[in-house]
Amino acid sequence: MKILCLTPPMGFCEGFVEALGGEAHFIEKKKFPDGETYIRFPISVADEDVVIVHTGFPEQNDRLMEVFLAVDTARDLGASSVALVMPYMPYARQDRRFREGEPVSIKVVLEILAELDLDYLVVVDIHKEYSLSHFGPGAFNVSVLPYLAEKIKDEVENPLVLAPDRGATLRAKSVANVLNAEWDYLEKRRDRVTGEVTIKPKQISAEGKTVIIVDDMISTGSTLALAAKHLKEAGAKKVIALVAHALMVGDAEKKLKEAGVDRVITANTLAKDYPNIVKVIDVSKYIANFMKERELV
Amino acid sequence: MKILCLTPPMGFCEGFVEALGGEAHFIEKKKFPDGETYIRFPISVADEDVVIVHTGFPEQNDRLMEVFLAVDTARDLGASSVALVMPYMPYARQDRRFREGEPVSIKVVLEILAELDLDYLVVVDIHKEYSLSHFGPGAFNVSVLPYLAEKIKDEVENPLVLAPDRGATLRAKSVANVLNAEWDYLEKRRDRVTGEVTIKPKQISAEGKTVIIVDDMISTGSTLALAAKHLKEAGAKKVIALVAHALMVGDAEKKLKEAGVDRVITANTLAKDYPNIVKVIDVSKYIANFMKERELV
Repeated sequence: MKILCLTPPMGFCEGFVEALGGEAHFIEKKKFPDGETYIRFPISVADEDVVIVHTGFPEQNDRLMEVFLAVDTARDLGASSVALVMPYMPYARQDRRFREGEPVSIKVVLEILAELDLDYLVVVDIHKEYSLSHFGPGAFNVSVLPYLAEKIKDEVENPLVLAPDRGATLRAKSVANVLNAEWDYLEKRRDRVTGEVTIKPKQISAEGKTVIIVDDMISTGSTLALAAKHLKEAGAKKVIALVAHALMVGDAEKKLKEAGVDRVITANTLAKDYPNIVKVIDVSKYIANFMKERELV
Repeated sequence: MKILCLTPPMGFCEGFVEALGGEAHFIEKKKFPDGETYIRFPISVADEDVVIVHTGFPEQNDRLMEVFLAVDTARDLGASSVALVMPYMPYARQDRRFREGEPVSIKVVLEILAELDLDYLVVVDIHKEYSLSHFGPGAFNVSVLPYLAEKIKDEVENPLVLAPDRGATLRAKSVANVLNAEWDYLEKRRDRVTGEVTIKPKQISAEGKTVIIVDDMISTGSTLALAAKHLKEAGAKKVIALVAHALMVGDAEKKLKEAGVDRVITANTLAKDYPNIVKVIDVSKYIANFMKERELV
């Protein structure tokens, strides 16, 4: 088996290789002056089982072009099998045609990877797991949320786990189980007389609680900031976000701090430096073990 | 037939639609704050023959993602046939493995387009025409170089047409035929004693001539600048570059002017504003007519 790091998440290759043995080989990559992507394999992969470690953020289109080139090259150079570990899969939120005339972007990305003859694909907390059907057999989704919860278990007192909406309760439940906590989901209500919008848990009061909002990702942070503001007003002692992917786009950190978010707990799924409010937990060994258990490596 | 403009070359859609009739529909496009590409078809394309007009420069990876999404969307929305007019095809220069471990990038791009079920592909002066075999049947290469030559025919006196190297003589010949000019190719020679490099025509003197260097593209302009310097020193009256794609990356204009290049003649194949040294000739109607003659539209 040859592990080839393309644009891996921060610190991911090191832990991944440590868990699986062998050594990390970094695929050479650059952009030509005209903007074209160039990659080159540093070792022979003929008759080898190849595992490419990569992520889809930031600069999603560049990351996708890199991985399309790498998968095809591995095949051309005679790899016995090609697996891709891509903790953050871009375009996963465009998982259906919300309006007529739109693409189903995640379908396009996954179909291309399948057509390039990728054997296995491992992603982390993809927005909707059913999207993986566009890849066909060989696609695996790992949720790191329970693992992240385990890592902060000793630090949280009087926890209440909240899903940001009704549709996301499964993720919240998986975290609540680990923390032995109550869980609920957030509901948006508009006062019929004043028109004022409030966001609060459906059934359980946040008062005095350490509220843990669980989601697959934070992008610009707007939704989370709005919820945190209401929860703090309702007496929450602390507001923590626990997410697999902390994109933290633009001024997300400022927005979250101002809204009273105390901490963001996340996994190292992206090729970026995280701002101070984010605590990053290394999940590389967890993913490696997931793959070992399923005999993918 | 529905003509859908995605990221078309400058002024291309207007001329294209004028030649073919109908009207131009612009595909809505934007980037989300996190960097993902969004597109949306403005009209129904069910049971229609769709022609997408697009280009691959600048920002090649963004342009490719847009077109992958658009082709798949046209198919999903029930188009009877999908054709793509993409005058500049990116990654065409990586047409083989120059060093072990490299991808054949143009193969990856063309195979993806074919797998997304594109019926026809029309490109302009692709770096190597044989690359189109990776798309399979339905790919067409149009050379606009003779057309560009026709447009400047009355302005050039005492012309000498030069290919930048021996391998590019076919392009030079096609231009020389239109201009009724002599042609030759440039040869690089290193003096065995002094080590000095000279670049000059193999057989015909450039002295007093209007030299027209013919190539598929200018990228950073370094090769062209070097040739122009030597040709001016050898007494060339004027040096003109005639190319299908004037990428003009970085400080290409400055470099060419300093080397004595008087003018760059090119076609509108890119979605960019060109610097002053470049004279752009609209080839949209020429391409439209090519497609009509072959009954592609």
